[in-house]
Amino acid sequence: MSPVVGELLAVAVEEARLGLAEGGIPIGAALFTSDGELLGRGHNRRVQDGDPSMHAETAAFRDAGRRRHYRDTIMVTTLSPCWYCSGLVRQFAIPHVVVGESTTFTGGHDWLAEHGVRVEIVDDATCVGLMTDFVAAHPDLWYEDIGE
Amino acid sequence: MSPVVGELLAVAVEEARLGLAEGGIPIGAALFTSDGELLGRGHNRRVQDGDPSMHAETAAFRDAGRRRHYRDTIMVTTLSPCWYCSGLVRQFAIPHVVVGESTTFTGGHDWLAEHGVRVEIVDDATCVGLMTDFVAAHPDLWYEDIGE
Repeated sequence: MSPVVGELLAVAVEEARLGLAEGGIPIGAALFTSDGELLGRGHNRRVQDGDPSMHAETAAFRDAGRRRHYRDTIMVTTLSPCWYCSGLVRQFAIPHVVVGESTTFTGGHDWLAEHGVRVEIVDDATCVGLMTDFVAAHPDLWYEDIGE
Repeated sequence: MSPVVGELLAVAVEEARLGLAEGGIPIGAALFTSDGELLGRGHNRRVQDGDPSMHAETAAFRDAGRRRHYRDTIMVTTLSPCWYCSGLVRQFAIPHVVVGESTTFTGGHDWLAEHGVRVEIVDDATCVGLMTDFVAAHPDLWYEDIGE
């Protein structure tokens, strides 16, 4: 059974809100099997852990633990994956990415699509709102997080 | 003063050997300033921590902690950076990458060069030997680490 995209995205949004409640950057992600089984979830931890390597997607990937391959997985993220997280998707051959929004930031999702990844952009108003409000309130943190 | 590449690479090789001694995949990396000051160092931790997100370059990047920008830094790694680690370099605009070898594996360093990153391939025999021996002894671990 193909999982409902909105249900997958809801887990990533929950992670983004957890991050925001902790004083962090509100980006969340979750890794599922193609059947919709949750493998790992996480959110950006730059502020909370002082860890610039823990973007939402890398946190979800880490949370899923070691796997022999990813060819039956879906990466779901509230925001278009940056080059770092797009590189993760490409290297580990994750075949399907669901993106909450790419309005406030566009990373490497077109590049992933060119390399055969199925990319779905949801254009979710909640995701847009979380990032719009955050960037307006903490532009310094946001630009630090994307190295700009 | 421009740092001597061999001295920078020696730190990454030391990290690779630490990883090997721990039973891990022998890939090491270090982040320096353009003046040769060490900012962070680390090695692949897939086996040791059960953490697939800690490639050598991401471990060195994490070890360096939060930084406002990376425009004065050099990423030194014993092995050609995979797409995940190449994405890290591109996203955070690390302008200079030193690669110990790209014989046993070639990741995204040509892509980085196309995007303006200065890439130096050392073709270091010690780095080649570490990976050649490891891949021959543990092909399963190596292919897991690069998602193949």
